[in-house]
Amino acid sequence: MSGTIYGLGLGPGDPDLMSVKAHRLLTGARHVAFFRKKGRPGQARTLADPLMPQDAIEVPMEYPVTTEIPLSDPRYNEILSAFYAESVAQLVEIAERGEDVVVLCEGDPFFYGSFMHLYTRLKDRVPVEVIPAITGMSAAWTATGLPITWGDDVLTVVMGTLPEAELVRQMLNADALVVMKIGRNFAKIVSALAQAGKLERAWLVEYAAMPGQTVQRLSDVAADQAAPYFSIVIVHGQGRRP
Amino acid sequence: MSGTIYGLGLGPGDPDLMSVKAHRLLTGARHVAFFRKKGRPGQARTLADPLMPQDAIEVPMEYPVTTEIPLSDPRYNEILSAFYAESVAQLVEIAERGEDVVVLCEGDPFFYGSFMHLYTRLKDRVPVEVIPAITGMSAAWTATGLPITWGDDVLTVVMGTLPEAELVRQMLNADALVVMKIGRNFAKIVSALAQAGKLERAWLVEYAAMPGQTVQRLSDVAADQAAPYFSIVIVHGQGRRP
Repeated sequence: MSGTIYGLGLGPGDPDLMSVKAHRLLTGARHVAFFRKKGRPGQARTLADPLMPQDAIEVPMEYPVTTEIPLSDPRYNEILSAFYAESVAQLVEIAERGEDVVVLCEGDPFFYGSFMHLYTRLKDRVPVEVIPAITGMSAAWTATGLPITWGDDVLTVVMGTLPEAELVRQMLNADALVVMKIGRNFAKIVSALAQAGKLERAWLVEYAAMPGQTVQRLSDVAADQAAPYFSIVIVHGQGRRP
Repeated sequence: MSGTIYGLGLGPGDPDLMSVKAHRLLTGARHVAFFRKKGRPGQARTLADPLMPQDAIEVPMEYPVTTEIPLSDPRYNEILSAFYAESVAQLVEIAERGEDVVVLCEGDPFFYGSFMHLYTRLKDRVPVEVIPAITGMSAAWTATGLPITWGDDVLTVVMGTLPEAELVRQMLNADALVVMKIGRNFAKIVSALAQAGKLERAWLVEYAAMPGQTVQRLSDVAADQAAPYFSIVIVHGQGRRP
């Protein structure tokens, strides 16, 4: 009898915003796996800290590379593929002993993120269950105190890593907008929002539902500021409202 | 001392997928408000049923109209505005007695839905707190067993109520796609997906994370079928995956 591997969505950060199911699985877990960069505690592991069982066996999966090699370099895919294969072998080995593994996922496991690279390699080998979660973007728009979408608004979610012209095109097509992966793309995103006529309505939320949460109008943030990775840009829809 | 009005996101349906915070607030609630159509139990109230405290005072807010008057008729906005104003007066009256009210919201309160119409009218009068939740679309893509977005995929969320040409335009611009408000728009949505070249990759999820959940390839569903209101169409992104 194989154990089950749970892709456990932690939600945006606040343990109070985890699902009842994720909370129960985590506090009862025997094996807890998570991604991290070598030498770092790892964001998912940090978020889970208040709920980690004392006797849990930790299974860190350490990225061999994050931003040191450009995504366009063929070596990037090779190195990452080998890393995911190795991580999967480690998880399957535990499951085949009949034990469950909880894999910690920031936000919702199927919405961007890294777990899906394990999932596609695991799902035909051992039982895998995915626990959805509140997304970071839900926490971000909630933090602004304004609804994101009304009536027939179109919501578009884009990554700041896209080329500027593509960002502008998508921003022009959107009623409500979420931009993620900000970091070093900050100046480009600000420029694209200005070209799409949406800069004045944009908000920057840092560390949504985490300690140190901030909510600012994007136009009040210095354009040369490098926003932290855990930040999200929000432009609210303006749709029908009786 | 005024009580607080909680916009409580119930999530997609399964009480196990509610946040720990929402679960605690609901099971400890004294006043529980919810929208419903006259003569119906109301979907939010039905979802909350297993967790309703026995002695909770229920505050039903009954829509005077749903689909009987077209949205384009000016009377629609007038009637709805008066209804929201009346509902708000009822909630403020309870809060001003110093008591908290939980308002049940399907999905995430700030992501489409009706609570936001109360929220904008309440927020400058009494304390209001919004509890985000897992969206119905998260439950839907989780049910398909396939990740919705990879790498730099653009996710677009559209309502099936939009005109067909606008649906096609948005579908062409999207990598990953979510279509909500299906119901009587089903045939139009199928036609738009075909025009955008996305019909073969589309899935129909009915009652995601609720009893009776079904997951089908949209091309296997008869085009003349009227899908139920609680259904979501999903087209997964195809982005970068090492």
